[in-house]
Amino acid sequence: MTDVRALRGAAAVAGIGWTPFRKASGVSPLALAVRAVRAALDDAGLDPAEVDGLGTHHLGDTAQVHEVAKALGLDGVGWFSEEYGGGNRFPALLGDAALAVASGVARHVVLYRALNGRSGVRMGGATRPMPGPDLQWQQPYGVLTPAHNYGFAARAHMQAYGTTSAQLGAVAVAQRCAAVLNERAMMRTPLTLDDYLEAPEIVDPFRLYDYCLETDAGCAVLVTTTERARDLRRRPVTIEGWAAQLGRDDLTKPDLTTSTAATIAPRLYALAGRGPDDVDVAELYDAFTFTVLVQVEDYGFCAKGEGGPFVESGATALGGRIPVNTHGGFLSEGYVHGINHVCEAVSQLRGDAGARQVPGAETALVSAQPGYLTGGTSAVLLGVG
Amino acid sequence: MTDVRALRGAAAVAGIGWTPFRKASGVSPLALAVRAVRAALDDAGLDPAEVDGLGTHHLGDTAQVHEVAKALGLDGVGWFSEEYGGGNRFPALLGDAALAVASGVARHVVLYRALNGRSGVRMGGATRPMPGPDLQWQQPYGVLTPAHNYGFAARAHMQAYGTTSAQLGAVAVAQRCAAVLNERAMMRTPLTLDDYLEAPEIVDPFRLYDYCLETDAGCAVLVTTTERARDLRRRPVTIEGWAAQLGRDDLTKPDLTTSTAATIAPRLYALAGRGPDDVDVAELYDAFTFTVLVQVEDYGFCAKGEGGPFVESGATALGGRIPVNTHGGFLSEGYVHGINHVCEAVSQLRGDAGARQVPGAETALVSAQPGYLTGGTSAVLLGVG
Repeated sequence: MTDVRALRGAAAVAGIGWTPFRKASGVSPLALAVRAVRAALDDAGLDPAEVDGLGTHHLGDTAQVHEVAKALGLDGVGWFSEEYGGGNRFPALLGDAALAVASGVARHVVLYRALNGRSGVRMGGATRPMPGPDLQWQQPYGVLTPAHNYGFAARAHMQAYGTTSAQLGAVAVAQRCAAVLNERAMMRTPLTLDDYLEAPEIVDPFRLYDYCLETDAGCAVLVTTTERARDLRRRPVTIEGWAAQLGRDDLTKPDLTTSTAATIAPRLYALAGRGPDDVDVAELYDAFTFTVLVQVEDYGFCAKGEGGPFVESGATALGGRIPVNTHGGFLSEGYVHGINHVCEAVSQLRGDAGARQVPGAETALVSAQPGYLTGGTSAVLLGVG
Repeated sequence: MTDVRALRGAAAVAGIGWTPFRKASGVSPLALAVRAVRAALDDAGLDPAEVDGLGTHHLGDTAQVHEVAKALGLDGVGWFSEEYGGGNRFPALLGDAALAVASGVARHVVLYRALNGRSGVRMGGATRPMPGPDLQWQQPYGVLTPAHNYGFAARAHMQAYGTTSAQLGAVAVAQRCAAVLNERAMMRTPLTLDDYLEAPEIVDPFRLYDYCLETDAGCAVLVTTTERARDLRRRPVTIEGWAAQLGRDDLTKPDLTTSTAATIAPRLYALAGRGPDDVDVAELYDAFTFTVLVQVEDYGFCAKGEGGPFVESGATALGGRIPVNTHGGFLSEGYVHGINHVCEAVSQLRGDAGARQVPGAETALVSAQPGYLTGGTSAVLLGVG
């Protein structure tokens, strides 16, 4: 039991589900959660009575697992997880579910995240600061929202490496190009670099299109053993490895230009037995454009400091060397706090991503927020079963 | 990997730690958490730098894992869990940690729970109802606190089986007898049945001494593999099995006289390869006296309906057939939301429980809240390594 490499590929994502992504869902987070879970089970062709695990993460803004179980009539849930956390959490939760099914603690685990992020609890505003005592050291200085934390890091990167606003804009433009091909995306109007640069500044150095969207939506994924997944409807997408790390994720880091992703990347690749050159598609946490730019460096797709030229070169666009956020990401598809990145990666690895399909994709990286905020980071590598 | 029985005894509790149990700690939950974690590491003789896992559960009332990691200078935390939950959660969290170390995902996991349950956020009051939408169906009828939920169940048990107030009182009296022998306990004045019966009624059928205490305290346990635990200072206490269940844990249950503990008991015993006759000591969740009475039935120590005569007979007192809550429990030691039951069970199995030691104890059962509230239940069976 104690060789963690035994977990490589032992569990798989066997189903994915979404509700529509909207500004106003018109229903509760519970209804969104139930619809997303049902969609994921339908996708896999699994009877809800077979579900014996249920997990989510939240910040007090969603349906709790016992409510979802009751609403769906799930009477046999013997593994459950309800993690307190936001952008740091989903890939780690996927790892927890993989461990639960690989060890036999559960057979079929459904993970979901559902929130009315636009019409309900809006998490980016200064009127509702993020929880945590770290804020007592930040708020007196005007650091009130995640944009402030990431803004300092982006500005530090600009100063250290000459990263430009146009390079941040290249991230937004590339992701919008992908979103145009994604019928689920909230933002499908083509975006030019001029549009980006002319948009209002919000928090230095971020403009409007550096920000992820506020979204009402639910998503869900079904996790089971790879062996069991082969008996279900879809091609299994294997969980090859995951890693997580609590870091000193605040503005006291000695070097803001490197994220906690750099800490977990070697461990993640070693566990999965794959490296950055093996990754065909990456869904990188994009609360802001900058988080993509720093992660293409910290996950080893380019050298430290070269993220700006790298994204500007088109390397991360569809058709580029390493397509990133092929659904449009949080910037253009919608922001469901991490899980929609996993859904897109699964779609890409199954080969059913339609017009935005990355040909022959066999390995996908999905990351969580790369630090700078409380709760650290996590990431997962997915493959084909 | 998929035979869950491979987990039996693979992980162990290698250290336990407490802060004092008080009405007013005078410090923050963060300070309590840090002190408890340090105490557990000192108990085991483990360098804090070796800790790579950290977990807790909470209701927004404690130090988050990233704060505790930062305060202790733990830079290598690669597994972490911060479960949203209360009385349902600790045994399941212990199982999660066991799985993490048994699979090699982590090496040394510290779990803690710290709260200022008396001087800070008090959770039993009607002015701060428990979270969850289920309450919208309860509050209009005056069901405002956990005592109301458990009170209905206790009254149903009285009606169905003739259970008496004096039998509920026998639970309180037996636990106070144990607390007298426990230097950590908040309530060490001997309690008689007359004291119990003459105390004011709070919520039918509960009187003052049916209630657990409001406590400021922190506790922590260190979990590692049993093999690794053998190299540390204390005798390893093995995690033989655990089980959890989300149930329809509210007043819509068709039969309030049986708890969700009855659902998990067979699974727990099967996983651990031990039955109720093997259990030498039981630390049963005692938010109220009634929860002990219903659990001695539902975990199989006596037949359904016979819990009242069973506790009245002295079977659950120190020296009885199955000593229960040998530290005084939440009713007399203090209420740290579950974890202090695990600490006491470990102490008993190590044989260092002093005047309240159960001679030759080799198997201990520790349970969470037995349903009736949101979040279901969980339980763990511990043994000697």
